[in-house]
Amino acid sequence: MTRVTESAVPLLHDPDRRGFASDNYAGAHPEVLAAMSTANGGHESAYGADRYTARLHEVMARHLGREVQVFPVFNGTGANVLALQSMLPRWGAVVCSETAHINTDENAAPERVGGIKLLTVPTPDGRLTPELVDRQARGRGDEHRAQPLVVSLTQSTELGTCYSPEEIRALCEHAHGLGMRVHMDGARLANAAASLDLPLRALTSDVGVDLLSFGGTKNGLLGAEAVVVIDPAASVGLTYLRKMNMQLGSKMRFVSAQLLALLEGDLWLRSARHANAMARRLRDAVAGVEGVEVVRPVEANAVFAVLPAGVADRLRERFRFYDWDPFTGEVRWMCSFDTTTQDVDAFAAAIIAEVAR
Amino acid sequence: MTRVTESAVPLLHDPDRRGFASDNYAGAHPEVLAAMSTANGGHESAYGADRYTARLHEVMARHLGREVQVFPVFNGTGANVLALQSMLPRWGAVVCSETAHINTDENAAPERVGGIKLLTVPTPDGRLTPELVDRQARGRGDEHRAQPLVVSLTQSTELGTCYSPEEIRALCEHAHGLGMRVHMDGARLANAAASLDLPLRALTSDVGVDLLSFGGTKNGLLGAEAVVVIDPAASVGLTYLRKMNMQLGSKMRFVSAQLLALLEGDLWLRSARHANAMARRLRDAVAGVEGVEVVRPVEANAVFAVLPAGVADRLRERFRFYDWDPFTGEVRWMCSFDTTTQDVDAFAAAIIAEVAR
Amino acid sequence: MTRVTESAVPLLHDPDRRGFASDNYAGAHPEVLAAMSTANGGHESAYGADRYTARLHEVMARHLGREVQVFPVFNGTGANVLALQSMLPRWGAVVCSETAHINTDENAAPERVGGIKLLTVPTPDGRLTPELVDRQARGRGDEHRAQPLVVSLTQSTELGTCYSPEEIRALCEHAHGLGMRVHMDGARLANAAASLDLPLRALTSDVGVDLLSFGGTKNGLLGAEAVVVIDPAASVGLTYLRKMNMQLGSKMRFVSAQLLALLEGDLWLRSARHANAMARRLRDAVAGVEGVEVVRPVEANAVFAVLPAGVADRLRERFRFYDWDPFTGEVRWMCSFDTTTQDVDAFAAAIIAEVAR
Amino acid sequence: MTRVTESAVPLLHDPDRRGFASDNYAGAHPEVLAAMSTANGGHESAYGADRYTARLHEVMARHLGREVQVFPVFNGTGANVLALQSMLPRWGAVVCSETAHINTDENAAPERVGGIKLLTVPTPDGRLTPELVDRQARGRGDEHRAQPLVVSLTQSTELGTCYSPEEIRALCEHAHGLGMRVHMDGARLANAAASLDLPLRALTSDVGVDLLSFGGTKNGLLGAEAVVVIDPAASVGLTYLRKMNMQLGSKMRFVSAQLLALLEGDLWLRSARHANAMARRLRDAVAGVEGVEVVRPVEANAVFAVLPAGVADRLRERFRFYDWDPFTGEVRWMCSFDTTTQDVDAFAAAIIAEVAR
Repeated sequence: MTRVTESAVPLLHDPDRRGFASDNYAGAHPEVLAAMSTANGGHESAYGADRYTARLHEVMARHLGREVQVFPVFNGTGANVLALQSMLPRWGAVVCSETAHINTDENAAPERVGGIKLLTVPTPDGRLTPELVDRQARGRGDEHRAQPLVVSLTQSTELGTCYSPEEIRALCEHAHGLGMRVHMDGARLANAAASLDLPLRALTSDVGVDLLSFGGTKNGLLGAEAVVVIDPAASVGLTYLRKMNMQLGSKMRFVSAQLLALLEGDLWLRSARHANAMARRLRDAVAGVEGVEVVRPVEANAVFAVLPAGVADRLRERFRFYDWDPFTGEVRWMCSFDTTTQDVDAFAAAIIAEVAR
Repeated sequence: MTRVTESAVPLLHDPDRRGFASDNYAGAHPEVLAAMSTANGGHESAYGADRYTARLHEVMARHLGREVQVFPVFNGTGANVLALQSMLPRWGAVVCSETAHINTDENAAPERVGGIKLLTVPTPDGRLTPELVDRQARGRGDEHRAQPLVVSLTQSTELGTCYSPEEIRALCEHAHGLGMRVHMDGARLANAAASLDLPLRALTSDVGVDLLSFGGTKNGLLGAEAVVVIDPAASVGLTYLRKMNMQLGSKMRFVSAQLLALLEGDLWLRSARHANAMARRLRDAVAGVEGVEVVRPVEANAVFAVLPAGVADRLRERFRFYDWDPFTGEVRWMCSFDTTTQDVDAFAAAIIAEVAR
Repeated sequence: MTRVTESAVPLLHDPDRRGFASDNYAGAHPEVLAAMSTANGGHESAYGADRYTARLHEVMARHLGREVQVFPVFNGTGANVLALQSMLPRWGAVVCSETAHINTDENAAPERVGGIKLLTVPTPDGRLTPELVDRQARGRGDEHRAQPLVVSLTQSTELGTCYSPEEIRALCEHAHGLGMRVHMDGARLANAAASLDLPLRALTSDVGVDLLSFGGTKNGLLGAEAVVVIDPAASVGLTYLRKMNMQLGSKMRFVSAQLLALLEGDLWLRSARHANAMARRLRDAVAGVEGVEVVRPVEANAVFAVLPAGVADRLRERFRFYDWDPFTGEVRWMCSFDTTTQDVDAFAAAIIAEVAR
Repeated sequence: MTRVTESAVPLLHDPDRRGFASDNYAGAHPEVLAAMSTANGGHESAYGADRYTARLHEVMARHLGREVQVFPVFNGTGANVLALQSMLPRWGAVVCSETAHINTDENAAPERVGGIKLLTVPTPDGRLTPELVDRQARGRGDEHRAQPLVVSLTQSTELGTCYSPEEIRALCEHAHGLGMRVHMDGARLANAAASLDLPLRALTSDVGVDLLSFGGTKNGLLGAEAVVVIDPAASVGLTYLRKMNMQLGSKMRFVSAQLLALLEGDLWLRSARHANAMARRLRDAVAGVEGVEVVRPVEANAVFAVLPAGVADRLRERFRFYDWDPFTGEVRWMCSFDTTTQDVDAFAAAIIAEVAR
């Protein structure tokens, strides 16, 4: 008989309430908690010298290639800054989209902690192209200019779109031809792979990506990401950088076990597919509704829309979601591994009702 | 009926094997996992706007005073750097012991990420005194000297000793009199409180500490610490600093739930008391054994000893532990919440046997 | 009888050769060397406690107001980074033009040394407006966003244009209304004042500028700039920041004496007026020439032009100047305090001849 | 006929007054001003692409070896931080003396700007030894410890002592054997070379020093130092580091001309010899005087002494000098290139008179 442990912590929230604010509002998939429980008990070496971290290395190698190195970290900002810092000398710069998470949502951690200059270009749909890269990839050897040595792309993008493998390959070949390296912010890589029905490697190691921030938290983990070095020649010092940048977990087995829960089987794919399907269901339910404009392709788990004045605020009395662009009134609806069809249908019905009011 | 979720992650380690290497080698207390399970399910606001973080604030206030502000973070280095950075202008410096964790074990995160100078003094037993502080607390107003504006002490110290409330109060009064603030690295504050049989506030808010790095991981959490602002006038900008220094968890409810598991009831005290008791039991078992010298007072959960040449290496074939000082041959044995009396007795027996060989 | 000291350093360059590459290619005005000679001899307190630095303070106060504080530094990048850092908390950001020197020509010193995020906006003619500021001055209180707390404008701009006093006042009022402060990169402030026929204060202290990087080097000094604090409430810690950022000269009397040489009398104005006049003369000489397009207003000492293919490279065999925009073929011609009418006329004749070829 | 240029800057100080406070209180040697005048006039390429900087490279190669690279900078702190940063990865640390200028007098610029940890050891006379280096040169490969990869020594030391060539060679061989590199802070290298009657190379390139901060300001320049790369394999990126750390002078010809004034002929040696001789003269004049204790060997241009209570303050009414150690009452008297025998004799007489009072 299993005796279930009780804690003194009371239930404080409604575990049946969900919204469309963020895939970070969702909790953890039950399999993830189960994996942490498996990893518990006894003493294991700290700081990554444990068996779950070793296993994670093997499993990631199965996904992305035998040469990969995996550095589990706490969050996505940590993964991005570590990855970029390991790819750049102190005078380096990164070419990225204006809408990149590293540029807009990390309170300048790349600049302040990493000492990295971001050279941004506008990207209408969140995707870089070789031509856009060229607008900033210049001034090599000029001591007055931060040296553009890395291209960073986000997959899926912050605007809910996906790069095709061919697009990534073209970017990587272009960057490599310029002597630059390529970093992928894969906070929602699983959503892109699920959307394109491709294995993870088809969007990363197979097409030239050098380093990857592999995202787990938005896909049902409690809090775990990993820097994955695909080309070891592109990165130096991650062991030290992780510690000095405060991303080294002492009981790392619990970080690694979360990532294993995703990658050992197909949880990563099941969860991402589901979230994507819910986003498409939402889009389909509101597309064509007079007054609702879905303004971007729904290629992952996000729907961006413009609503008639006042509707968003009235909807928010019952459903949480965020404004995306204060200038255009665009809003963002995110689905996650635990969004149900009922959630979507109820939300869509509410939208339709409010628009019709 | 509760259906237990299975994960694809296999059991990889021996959950019955424990050693004396570090309280970071231990796993998580079952009540901690239970608390995380309670916090799971449904959607909760991210980045700390959730109910478990709000509750943590109330619970910490019960422990440390109504004015406290709590900032959950991922690890101890993160807590220390954030706390110190929030207490200092860009030209600030911290007076601390040469053996302080911030000086020896954080790969210069305070300097590199925080931009902070550490002004160190030798401390025979790990404890600062007003006189020792004065050796570095000088040069105020001299632009050539990093400005000493904070004293940082560790409770319990890195050498397993504890400051008494009177000693902390004297340090705080002295520092405040010099216009300096006081930070406590409380990675093992619970062990000190248990050892002295005092509430947490008797060692912190009651005696003048301004900011506290409250430790949880070494006391049975999976990975959670908190910056606790005791005097709000001593700290500025922690909200921003936590994000830009990559210590802001998106699904923060799971970090806060861990800390709640410790503090809502008396788990913090039970676990710390037990670890301390195991350390004393180990000391008692080897004290007086010819050839074994326990070289420091055992006031928390650490035992420091010097053994005859060769003994440590032979012991390590069966029990994990670390060298402390390569010059003196001193070794460190750590006990944790899950150390058993059998563990201690078997280890002590092995020590005695090896020394006698 | 004055005995002229000889040095062992031989004459290595042609002191009669001048070009249009940069006002940094020019040497020092003879009065500047004379001032340094005056300041020489005997012992004076180091690090700014000398009489020439004290005098500079008085003279600058005469120009800009009684409350000003003056911090002489070595170069413009140093002045800008110090000024901005003193105006911002660690989480601060600066709104500036995409073409601002701090963004394009300082190898990310503001980010790397200052820890400052630059939030840029495109400015067709190099000038910010309140509307352009608003595109980035948002997200106050959002911990994910670098906090926009300073507007930085360049006078005269990097594109050779000048802000009118009214434009600066409007920007300052707008910024102050948003709780932001205003920094002016005045590397060529003298050129703007000369162009507008206004005293320095009319473009700075009279219209709301809080801190000024006062430029001297481009206006005939050997190498001296100053951070000028106009509103002391807008800046903190410059004494420490200057030292820790390696901009504190030990024999500061020689830095201050240079600035005094400009500001004690009217050398700043004479030199700037002359450089501006030479730029206008050049513009007038080539305006209307078939194939030469002067593409920006000539409001200071720079002329920007587009030439027929191949002409720039042929001209450069005899006259030094730089490409400005590799995408459009735009070139930049700078005049300086020592540019002569003969220099301009010879250059204009060469341009006309090459275009006609 | 030469027309002497007048400036508007009045004479503000007494050019005949000198003291013993610092070699930074002295002005510039007349030959230095003459060299700057020679370098003036006409247009020369900015940022180091001028003929005087090229010449400096040749002259320095004559002194220190054909492979040297020279990077003129503004001040000693700049030279030290740049040199060290170019020798270290982001996780690097420097072993140095507790009394090293980089540790005590640069307001943590190495830490704050360079991101460098200093691992200090007490040195009774300011000089490191291989044994002292070993106290900190450990923990290689341990991610928790800042990686000790450089030894930095000061020649002559901050305590007025000199390393012999043999001592430097032993340190360099030891460091190299540990996989470490060696930096010399040569702010007063000329004084050491003069004292030991050796060429500069005998203390640097001939005995294994990898990078040198070559000091000029304390030896009669207005303000010029240089990072000298002796072993190019030990340094990377100085071109970029100098710019991004705000030490790149635009009109660099005037920085280089100063250094040339020292090194083209024998001014460096004449000035240093004279300053050293004045220090010895002062020591000789007060040695043996009852109540005056010269507490350190006088091997360069500094004299350290302990005086009876009250004497120092009475002396300072007429002669400027600094306290060295507030705990012991030790004072420091510095001589410079322009100290006269009359200055020394008058000061010595005053000391003797005050002590006898």
